[in-house]
Amino acid sequence: MTEKIYKKSLRLHKFYKGKIATMLKCPIKDLFDFSYYYTPGVAAVSLEIYKDKQKVFEYTNRCNTIAIISDGSRVLGLGDIGPQAALPVMEGKALIFKYLGGVDAIPVVLNVKEPDKIVEVVKAISSSFGGINLEDIEQPKCFYVLEKLKEELDIPVWHDDQQGTATVTLAGLINALKIVDKKINEIKLSLIGAGAANVCIARLLIKAGVEPGNIIVVDSKGILHPDREDIRQNAKLYKEKWELCLITNKEKVKGGIEESLVGRDVVIAASRPGPGVIKKEWIKKMNKKPIVFAQANPIPEILPNEAKKAGAYIVATGRSDFPNQINNSLCFPGIFRGVLDVQAKTITDEMCIEVAKTIAKFAERKGIHKDYIIPTMEEWELYPEIAATAGVTAIKQSLARKDLSWKQLYNNAQKIIKSTIEQTNLLVKKGFIKVFNYTLPILILYNSLVSAETKIIRYKYFAESVRLDGSCGKFYSFNTYILSKNKVLLGIYRFDVSLTYGATTSSEIGIKLNLNEQQNILEFDKNITKLSPYVKYKITSSLNGAPVDFAVGFYKTTPFVVIEKTLPEIYSTSILTNLFFTFTQKEKFEYSFAISKYTKWVEYIIDINPVNQLYALGARILLMPDIKLGLFISDIKNLSNILFYNFVFGITIKI
Amino acid sequence: MTEKIYKKSLRLHKFYKGKIATMLKCPIKDLFDFSYYYTPGVAAVSLEIYKDKQKVFEYTNRCNTIAIISDGSRVLGLGDIGPQAALPVMEGKALIFKYLGGVDAIPVVLNVKEPDKIVEVVKAISSSFGGINLEDIEQPKCFYVLEKLKEELDIPVWHDDQQGTATVTLAGLINALKIVDKKINEIKLSLIGAGAANVCIARLLIKAGVEPGNIIVVDSKGILHPDREDIRQNAKLYKEKWELCLITNKEKVKGGIEESLVGRDVVIAASRPGPGVIKKEWIKKMNKKPIVFAQANPIPEILPNEAKKAGAYIVATGRSDFPNQINNSLCFPGIFRGVLDVQAKTITDEMCIEVAKTIAKFAERKGIHKDYIIPTMEEWELYPEIAATAGVTAIKQSLARKDLSWKQLYNNAQKIIKSTIEQTNLLVKKGFIKVFNYTLPILILYNSLVSAETKIIRYKYFAESVRLDGSCGKFYSFNTYILSKNKVLLGIYRFDVSLTYGATTSSEIGIKLNLNEQQNILEFDKNITKLSPYVKYKITSSLNGAPVDFAVGFYKTTPFVVIEKTLPEIYSTSILTNLFFTFTQKEKFEYSFAISKYTKWVEYIIDINPVNQLYALGARILLMPDIKLGLFISDIKNLSNILFYNFVFGITIKI
Repeated sequence: MTEKIYKKSLRLHKFYKGKIATMLKCPIKDLFDFSYYYTPGVAAVSLEIYKDKQKVFEYTNRCNTIAIISDGSRVLGLGDIGPQAALPVMEGKALIFKYLGGVDAIPVVLNVKEPDKIVEVVKAISSSFGGINLEDIEQPKCFYVLEKLKEELDIPVWHDDQQGTATVTLAGLINALKIVDKKINEIKLSLIGAGAANVCIARLLIKAGVEPGNIIVVDSKGILHPDREDIRQNAKLYKEKWELCLITNKEKVKGGIEESLVGRDVVIAASRPGPGVIKKEWIKKMNKKPIVFAQANPIPEILPNEAKKAGAYIVATGRSDFPNQINNSLCFPGIFRGVLDVQAKTITDEMCIEVAKTIAKFAERKGIHKDYIIPTMEEWELYPEIAATAGVTAIKQSLARKDLSWKQLYNNAQKIIKSTIEQTNLLVKKGFIKVFNYTLPILILYNSLVSAETKIIRYKYFAESVRLDGSCGKFYSFNTYILSKNKVLLGIYRFDVSLTYGATTSSEIGIKLNLNEQQNILEFDKNITKLSPYVKYKITSSLNGAPVDFAVGFYKTTPFVVIEKTLPEIYSTSILTNLFFTFTQKEKFEYSFAISKYTKWVEYIIDINPVNQLYALGARILLMPDIKLGLFISDIKNLSNILFYNFVFGITIKI
Repeated sequence: MTEKIYKKSLRLHKFYKGKIATMLKCPIKDLFDFSYYYTPGVAAVSLEIYKDKQKVFEYTNRCNTIAIISDGSRVLGLGDIGPQAALPVMEGKALIFKYLGGVDAIPVVLNVKEPDKIVEVVKAISSSFGGINLEDIEQPKCFYVLEKLKEELDIPVWHDDQQGTATVTLAGLINALKIVDKKINEIKLSLIGAGAANVCIARLLIKAGVEPGNIIVVDSKGILHPDREDIRQNAKLYKEKWELCLITNKEKVKGGIEESLVGRDVVIAASRPGPGVIKKEWIKKMNKKPIVFAQANPIPEILPNEAKKAGAYIVATGRSDFPNQINNSLCFPGIFRGVLDVQAKTITDEMCIEVAKTIAKFAERKGIHKDYIIPTMEEWELYPEIAATAGVTAIKQSLARKDLSWKQLYNNAQKIIKSTIEQTNLLVKKGFIKVFNYTLPILILYNSLVSAETKIIRYKYFAESVRLDGSCGKFYSFNTYILSKNKVLLGIYRFDVSLTYGATTSSEIGIKLNLNEQQNILEFDKNITKLSPYVKYKITSSLNGAPVDFAVGFYKTTPFVVIEKTLPEIYSTSILTNLFFTFTQKEKFEYSFAISKYTKWVEYIIDINPVNQLYALGARILLMPDIKLGLFISDIKNLSNILFYNFVFGITIKI
């Protein structure tokens, strides 16, 4: 799974060459407009700002721009891979900032590593930005850099690995405690890992009401307590950790993860990838209805099903494929949206706590249960709520330069976020953002299943006619069920999707609903010869007008497929290809296909399986540079035994 | 003029809050896409770059991103106004970089001023960028910073005030010399001013063939020569200037600007705003067919007509409203387009010279003459040519990491630039980039002129029906000439502009041509009473279908205007307003207007001019929030003396 994601990720990055570009905020009617936006007109703007520096937020995009700063010293789980290698991660973050928060975020990776140098450089460039997001900077320097920059700058500085994680974790915990009916000031808690995230989580939890003495923190060398000489000796460098040694663990428990869990209500792990970092048996030693947050990526410290088997009542992870994902992306786009909109000077723990409560309440309104303690990223209405909460909390704390109401902030955020998404969709629709497609509009063998019991053989073909410019798509799914030796069920599912791209909830639902809609089911009796040679489906794309003749049927007892397709429109610019292939049965089975002169490459293949000595006949043709369509009849013993399910349609893509 | 530009510039900046934002380069089909663009998928990309740092140009937008760096120490003509006040200028530059070159440019203003600190900070952040554009940094530190960064970075570093100006000046000079038929290696030349621009111009001219000894440079203290003790004493700091003292001025001329011009073929001034910095009489002392480049802004050292009167054969300035504008914007977008596309390591003087030649040849192909020695910004085909030249020159000099042909580079640049313009237009059309209109689609009193000699009174009304979303516009210009007491000439100019926004050459020409086209001229004799009460022009917008009835005519001897307009479409979302106002003469003059119930605000006004005791009658109605339309009959002594020219239509905008 991850391997697949990696591969596709590489392909996508190579195709798009990055994820964030700049774009104009103003129209250019004619080039005389440059006299307003640039010299000489802009001089008036510069002078206004010179007279009153605060006006830079009114006259420039500083009001909506933040820097994403990293020295690349702790990138994802990859460690110190340096600024260059960190850049794609920062760009990804910038993408999320824009898409979910409407925030213009600029990736700035640093060639300096010493904490004071980082502080110096960020200070030097800070006048260009309305906020700073620190990212993937290793601890303990991340604590120092954050603290120092917060002191010295009058714009919000945020370290997402600390504050973002802590905020979302707290949100999840608040709801988890509601479900198990425990009070935050009474719970006993174990924190596994003492990195940037958990150190900040501890601080935030304490501010949110958890008794410091009820917390036990475990780092790679064991439980924190005042006798931890290794930490005391580096108390200056690891001051946050040393403070935790002093204030937590009132029972003076010693040992490791196992010992830390005994009699605990909650465990929050943000340590190293599992499974097996937390053992099943240890969960059993926790209090009743234990809450387990196993947040390591890509694999949680204990897998949810393991934890549940061991008695965990609520399990949260960092993964999107399990319930209850503790996901920073829920919070940072909205928080920055809010603090930028009120021109806040900083982001306080109080703001984080209020945001956590907002996230928790949002889920609560929708109905929390043990598999839904926290919203998912798709719940768009959340982001403007977070923005509004962050903004009004800043105002309440007298840390904002602008005074706006909750409703104003909410509306503003909603408008900006919606506009960003719509703009992206528009640029996709109009072909300015190309769609990287490697599922091309051709039949693909999707699934085959032979069931011995029922003698039902099922083939699923999936054709996706998404245009390469992504503007619109039609999906066809063609299923064949050989119900019995003499009966075949052919089904064509056809889905019209008006807007494929654009992750709005409605279009998502649209696709999903249609996917369950089954049309044009035909039954054929293999023995009936009076059937017309084929049933033809003429499908005319609403977009390009190019007709697709797609026929399935039987000639005597042999099924066949005819595809007549004119591809010039679909393949936009590249190759004018006419495909015509027929599979018919005369005396013996024969197959043929014609390829128009525009197709530049064809390769005929006989492929013999060395194991079963079956052979395949087929050909590959070039559809586009590096994309080949393969047509095969597989598993052939002799030509008379060819059955429908021998056909394999596939495409080979080399990108 | 400049005052007007300043005012509009301030309004525009306040409206748009900056000029550059970020935008996605990739589509988001659903939120699962974040697993490719961000974690976990992006880890694969990071690792690839970790293994081979050069791949950062393949996988991230570093390949198309540059930083615009300024410490705000010499911003435009405003001096050291600091980084905050410099930001709008840098944003303006970023806008031009994107719009004319498709380059993603990020404004980064610096809170540090010492040259070595600037170098340090730029180096620290350089891994995020594919190039560095230094801007508005004072001399002499700009020389040091540029040189140092060129040495230490392996991406192109450019100081536009030096290299950009020098390149475009050279381009203009090449063609000017062709026209006057002089050879570059024979000309005698005076450079007025020894700032960043002229110091670099001197170097580039020498490399392009000008004899160093034939150059005389003048700074604020006079002509440079080896006896200039003030410079020699600071030779280390002003090393470029001191070198000019040594190598130029072989005739050892002393004195000031006047002396420097005697017997010179060319003067290139980049000194301080005129007029009068260069005097008419001095031009007369130059050689035959003198070439005068007076490049100071906003006012040239000598105004073109003055220079021409004094015998200047060719005059170039920095201004767009005179012929031959020496404009950096001609060159920097294309140069960076080219060097980014070949991943050049630097930008050399040789590249600048080749680009200058390309610019010169471009103009030559179109037909040069003394008022056209250099292309204008509107000549779009130029930018890709520059990009291609910059790219292939880098390749020839073995300074490029990618090998592409001239044609490939040209096509690529053309495609990117076109796409940026089209994207901007699309976002405007779809309302994502709002159009800031303060010339609203309503009659505006534009000009009034009373000529005592001819008794001709001329009124020019200008109506612009640009839709607020900017997608399309119609222009109407309505002129009234009272030719004599009894004759009135009414003219309606009508312009259909299919695409107002999007500064393509064709639409530009379209507008210009139409502006000279006069239609529907009607003559009325005031004494003729048998005329139909009014002539009605029904104008139906092609876009929104809302008819505009626009009538002018006379009832008996009094002119009147009827406007019937349904505005809902034009005012997009805001207010449904029906305006209907009639001005008729019955026994006495009377006026009336009806405003539909949707208009929320109306104010009746009687305004008495305290000086002449004339009074005005009128009303203001609310068109949109903060925008009021005023209708007045002005200069009224008594109601019987009301003439057509008493009407004033105006709008009041408060933004």
